[in-house]
Amino acid sequence: MKIGVIGLGTVGFGVVDILTQQKERLEKLIQEEVVVKYGCALNEVTLPDGIIYTQDFHDVLNDDEVDVVVELIGGTTIAKTIILEALKKGKNVVTANKALIAHDGQEIFEMAMKYQSKIYYEAAVGGGIPVVVPAKEDLVANEIEKIEGILNGTTNFILTLMETDNLDFEEALTIADGLGYVEADASLDLDGKDAAHKICILAMNAFEIFFDFHKIQCTGIRGVTKKDIDYAKKLGYRIKLIAQAKKLENGYGIDVSPTLIGIKDMVANVNQAYNVVEITCNYLENVIFYGKGAGRYVTASAVVSDIMKTHQPTMWQHQYQYVEDIFPITYSKYYIRCDHPLDIDYEMYYSQDHDHIYITNPIELNDLKHQLQNESYNLLKVRG
Amino acid sequence: MKIGVIGLGTVGFGVVDILTQQKERLEKLIQEEVVVKYGCALNEVTLPDGIIYTQDFHDVLNDDEVDVVVELIGGTTIAKTIILEALKKGKNVVTANKALIAHDGQEIFEMAMKYQSKIYYEAAVGGGIPVVVPAKEDLVANEIEKIEGILNGTTNFILTLMETDNLDFEEALTIADGLGYVEADASLDLDGKDAAHKICILAMNAFEIFFDFHKIQCTGIRGVTKKDIDYAKKLGYRIKLIAQAKKLENGYGIDVSPTLIGIKDMVANVNQAYNVVEITCNYLENVIFYGKGAGRYVTASAVVSDIMKTHQPTMWQHQYQYVEDIFPITYSKYYIRCDHPLDIDYEMYYSQDHDHIYITNPIELNDLKHQLQNESYNLLKVRG
Repeated sequence: MKIGVIGLGTVGFGVVDILTQQKERLEKLIQEEVVVKYGCALNEVTLPDGIIYTQDFHDVLNDDEVDVVVELIGGTTIAKTIILEALKKGKNVVTANKALIAHDGQEIFEMAMKYQSKIYYEAAVGGGIPVVVPAKEDLVANEIEKIEGILNGTTNFILTLMETDNLDFEEALTIADGLGYVEADASLDLDGKDAAHKICILAMNAFEIFFDFHKIQCTGIRGVTKKDIDYAKKLGYRIKLIAQAKKLENGYGIDVSPTLIGIKDMVANVNQAYNVVEITCNYLENVIFYGKGAGRYVTASAVVSDIMKTHQPTMWQHQYQYVEDIFPITYSKYYIRCDHPLDIDYEMYYSQDHDHIYITNPIELNDLKHQLQNESYNLLKVRG
Repeated sequence: MKIGVIGLGTVGFGVVDILTQQKERLEKLIQEEVVVKYGCALNEVTLPDGIIYTQDFHDVLNDDEVDVVVELIGGTTIAKTIILEALKKGKNVVTANKALIAHDGQEIFEMAMKYQSKIYYEAAVGGGIPVVVPAKEDLVANEIEKIEGILNGTTNFILTLMETDNLDFEEALTIADGLGYVEADASLDLDGKDAAHKICILAMNAFEIFFDFHKIQCTGIRGVTKKDIDYAKKLGYRIKLIAQAKKLENGYGIDVSPTLIGIKDMVANVNQAYNVVEITCNYLENVIFYGKGAGRYVTASAVVSDIMKTHQPTMWQHQYQYVEDIFPITYSKYYIRCDHPLDIDYEMYYSQDHDHIYITNPIELNDLKHQLQNESYNLLKVRG
């Protein structure tokens, strides 16, 4: 097996390291050489002996000896060209590029099917946690009904810090940023887009559907206040940025929103930069996958496992269907904070200082808003 | 694909149900018919139309049309004959038989290798939770260092009940038994043998070793008192029956023992009949798999996923090595309860009524026992 790694940042070097350190073991496993032939990046880098350094990705794509192209440059432009070209040439592709798979998954999957090449992207969701492949293969007996997850470590770190260190959002953000946890484009993390990329990928696979990524409604954590975290805690909840995908009666519901989770739920106890995915199916009921969502070796671990899997023939034929509409999941319990009492149905009520807090019964968001009329309030989803 | 299901108890019927209900979807996936040709059991049963009922498993084994033999009769005698015969005939085998794989895994795996047939047993560990295959395939980039888990739902149910309902062991056992949670041979659950079967299987795969199952030291939950559960809670711990496997300097450590787990750990929050497996690796760090450990459709879900996987060619060559010695994991923190103060090093001390409770620093068990000399005390492992 000859591998070309395109993109030599944190994860790229992690991949080269693992393939170097584990070479002997991995070769025994597939009874074949495992060789990184190329390392490709624009910046000058020092690679282990024997790896050809190039700045031109065409060197990798045009070499017939290369079986596996590893795309780790990110973004949705050159990365897309590289992946499509590689698949067209019958090469297998491994990528950690969540944005690209979320935006252009259909085109990429169809290209892979057409040229009978393979595309793996386990590292795109949940860092190193195996969840993309398990959801497709190990749960194959089941119809997946619902996926819920904490898929963005940065926002989970910030929310944890706000709770444990009694900080407001801006203070916690400054600390997260100082630790290098926030992406260059902070909006990806904070406004829920990164989580949306990931739930998009999980939903595509679980439901075998293609759809326009932009139809996913996502709300980030900028509106979550320290006050709401405290009230949620008093009522037995913790606030998490939850990405959710669900079969609805009339189609598929997918959204990302800050959500109150009962403190006894496993998901509520996923703190710091950890990720979690909970999958609910018709036979297996619920199963949870938990682990670190980011980090050089964490992510590289998933990339290398994918590289090894390209060596296995796969004979299952997943058939995707294009879906026009994706809906937000609006039937839910809601948390409402208001500065005066409200005339609504509720399951739980709490009042302190000038705040009136309600946990409603499950209700359609439109019906709830209709009841609330022109009131001014803070509103969050509640799971369960 | 033609399937013979041998053993038509709870899980067997679950498998037939799922294969009937999901027939169309599964056939699309593998582009081939998925047919249960035989249902084999000693007791008279009613099967869906088209499935041949037989009391003689030779009918299944001797039919060249049968690709996959599903062994669900349990036990280590006839089940073993069936599996070995099926593999010898080049048929693929799926089983949920943890005791058999734990005791005779080596013979079975070697038979499968010799005849290039496949053996899958995802349902043997953690019910429907995908963990056997993910640990082998999705974590392949990693060297697995440690596996810890709650692998027996019955004892976890009893321990949970003792804590939440303030019951002693016998009272909780009676309730669990009344709910049908306890195996006919109660010792399998209560003395940790069932958990030992499962950690044996996980360790075999993770470390690619064969060893004598009987070398696993296991302690069950009969010695866990309500008093210890309460004291553990006061000190920030919960008692769980933990099965553990670990690379040691001089070999491999595997054991099963009631263990205090810090209340904030995910594993400590796995209650009722749920199972959990935490795997620690060199790159991915720790990853957790959680879900229901038993139940008709939960277990059948894993069996059916395995059946589908027999359709995929696998080309990885796992190479197992026989290991003579398996050690208990004795370097640990310990919880000690004694009716008078002790002269030992400790990390935490608590006293109430006439009880003196210590959490020691990490220490070799022999050294600790040497310090304790002829004292009489209650001792439990502490994780961390």
